[in-house]
Amino acid sequence: MPIDGPLLEQRLDELYAIGAEPDGGAYRPLYGPAWATAVERVERWLKDAGLKTRRDAVGNLWGRVEGTDKGKSIVTGSHIDTVRRGGRLDGALGIVAGLTAVEALLEEKGKPRRTLEVVAICEEEGSRFATNFWGSRAIVGAIDAVDGDMAVAMRERGLDPSRISTAARDDIDTFVELHIEQGAVLDASGKPLAVVSAIVGTAHLEVDVTGRPDHAGTTPMGLRQDALAGAAAMIQAVESIARSLGAPAVATVGKIRAEPDQINVVPARVVFTIDLRHSDLNARRALEERIRSLCHTIASERSLALEVRVLQEKPPVPMHPDVRSVLASAAKELGAQASEMVSGAGHDAQVLAARCKVGMLFVPSIGGRSHCPEEATKAEDVALGTKVLMRSLQKIAY
Amino acid sequence: MPIDGPLLEQRLDELYAIGAEPDGGAYRPLYGPAWATAVERVERWLKDAGLKTRRDAVGNLWGRVEGTDKGKSIVTGSHIDTVRRGGRLDGALGIVAGLTAVEALLEEKGKPRRTLEVVAICEEEGSRFATNFWGSRAIVGAIDAVDGDMAVAMRERGLDPSRISTAARDDIDTFVELHIEQGAVLDASGKPLAVVSAIVGTAHLEVDVTGRPDHAGTTPMGLRQDALAGAAAMIQAVESIARSLGAPAVATVGKIRAEPDQINVVPARVVFTIDLRHSDLNARRALEERIRSLCHTIASERSLALEVRVLQEKPPVPMHPDVRSVLASAAKELGAQASEMVSGAGHDAQVLAARCKVGMLFVPSIGGRSHCPEEATKAEDVALGTKVLMRSLQKIAY
Repeated sequence: MPIDGPLLEQRLDELYAIGAEPDGGAYRPLYGPAWATAVERVERWLKDAGLKTRRDAVGNLWGRVEGTDKGKSIVTGSHIDTVRRGGRLDGALGIVAGLTAVEALLEEKGKPRRTLEVVAICEEEGSRFATNFWGSRAIVGAIDAVDGDMAVAMRERGLDPSRISTAARDDIDTFVELHIEQGAVLDASGKPLAVVSAIVGTAHLEVDVTGRPDHAGTTPMGLRQDALAGAAAMIQAVESIARSLGAPAVATVGKIRAEPDQINVVPARVVFTIDLRHSDLNARRALEERIRSLCHTIASERSLALEVRVLQEKPPVPMHPDVRSVLASAAKELGAQASEMVSGAGHDAQVLAARCKVGMLFVPSIGGRSHCPEEATKAEDVALGTKVLMRSLQKIAY
Repeated sequence: MPIDGPLLEQRLDELYAIGAEPDGGAYRPLYGPAWATAVERVERWLKDAGLKTRRDAVGNLWGRVEGTDKGKSIVTGSHIDTVRRGGRLDGALGIVAGLTAVEALLEEKGKPRRTLEVVAICEEEGSRFATNFWGSRAIVGAIDAVDGDMAVAMRERGLDPSRISTAARDDIDTFVELHIEQGAVLDASGKPLAVVSAIVGTAHLEVDVTGRPDHAGTTPMGLRQDALAGAAAMIQAVESIARSLGAPAVATVGKIRAEPDQINVVPARVVFTIDLRHSDLNARRALEERIRSLCHTIASERSLALEVRVLQEKPPVPMHPDVRSVLASAAKELGAQASEMVSGAGHDAQVLAARCKVGMLFVPSIGGRSHCPEEATKAEDVALGTKVLMRSLQKIAY
């Protein structure tokens, strides 16, 4: 296969240098100068590869090569924004691999039967505003309103907020994305590649525990209604329930605050969050139900008041069986040891699934590190993932 | 006995009105306008009762009646500052009861054999600066340095920071203080009065737990080093060890913070505090040792790094046996059902114990409430406590 491994690495290095931060990592927030420079760089690569480029109304960059047949497009790519102190591969890999694969296909196979497109999605991370999946939501026509700060940022980049609806596409057949795993499952298993079966559903809960503020010295243990001791029991329960359900169930208490948060006062109130994920909606609901039930039991035993609020709820998104099958076959044909796994993180594919067939390939994250300067994948795995992506695109588009 | 119950309540009401806050409670921070007004009010009462008044270099207010014998003074009183949204009785009761008791003694018994003094201690609560026991520390000559903000506040009140050492006294024989319990032990037992046997020793620890930040979606439960899940297990251990040791052991986790404190990131670091108290130094050390040991076990099982820092360590202070004996006899002579108990809170008596014999009497806090507008004691218990204080002062000074 004509995938140029060193070229892939060089392009990843070039993108990583754009928005480099003094203490490591890169930051390319939506519509910022680093973001704009990165989009221009990708556009030049796309043009050099012979693709026709355009920007849509939210700043997604598209590179297109017309197929000999009319019909919907086969699209690959990923997002170009990054979190603060982001790594070298998250998003960038899917763009670089996609354009390099299409470039190689055009060189080797010539004009495709079906139209091929490479997309650099403007934003997925909520890198600047709390607008995760901004680019893919525009593509599926799911943006109803633009708030003031976003409108200003768009205009500064020459984009017209009133034209957002024109970014919507209904002519995409398939979207396939190469991404790093962002977890340690592949790295731990020694497998170089995984076909994603589904993207987990996520529920975000906020748990509000109310007890009574008491003097830490004068209140015997038996007369307390300690909100933090109760919350600690609940946090233990969250962990043990998720462990007992087994993979792919995960539950995380990420944020916590106590009131009055004084060293010598028994906490009167604790608020903490729970992030719950599972690839099966019923299983995730069962996980949530068991956690809620045990939290209520703990609160009741300790005479604490409890309120559980749902902050966000997203259903799991299965990857399309046709795309999974193509990806698995391509890997097999190339002799790659591919496993199958659930994505615990969210990706643009889950949004685009509303309008087209979607599929994803994962390559390992060394040590599971992501969203940090240590984010890394072996060059041979990057090349292998790109080859499997290329072979898959060939199987669909040629 | 000639203690005027309604006058006690009226004086407590008058003090409580000084520094009243819009949403309930009173706030009289050190050297503030409400504090100054309260000191002036008490000074007028002392003068009206026939005591000679003076302010020392840190603003402690002393009212004195010379005894017929020469010799060291017998002192009663408490602190005049309050916490924010403080209650009606904390500190104020000891001042009002002390001056009302001495006033009644002078009326009934005339000039004492030993010199009697009533003191309104300027600060005990750390009400304005982190300077707890400022007034009593000045009395025992334990203030070495004055920081800039404090010096400015002193000068604004006409006090000269360079003269602080002149506030030190070595001519006090006995200090006896009436105070509210601030816990629910007396209220739960139905007893109206307690002689304090000791003031607990306190250790303040800061526990620093370090794990690894991981993506909440992509990191299976078994691959995590979750600092908050570990901290929750430790907080549970703190509570259960204190419970299992039994009263008067108490242990409280009052402050907690997580990093990065994001809903979708496994916490990398958690810092929490432990407040440990016991009236017996060896028992408190045993409590601390068991907690440290279990925290290390939990950290080790979970591959977390652990550091435990001592922020503060105060030994328990036993009340002087002579004063305890006088207080118990006085209660018995008045037919009062007095129990004996350990003070879980700190009081000026523990500082003054370095220079004189100390003793304390507690009256019940209804529902154990303190440091809040709900702080209350039945008028009959306030009057009884004052009568026992008066009888005790009579036994010592006449």
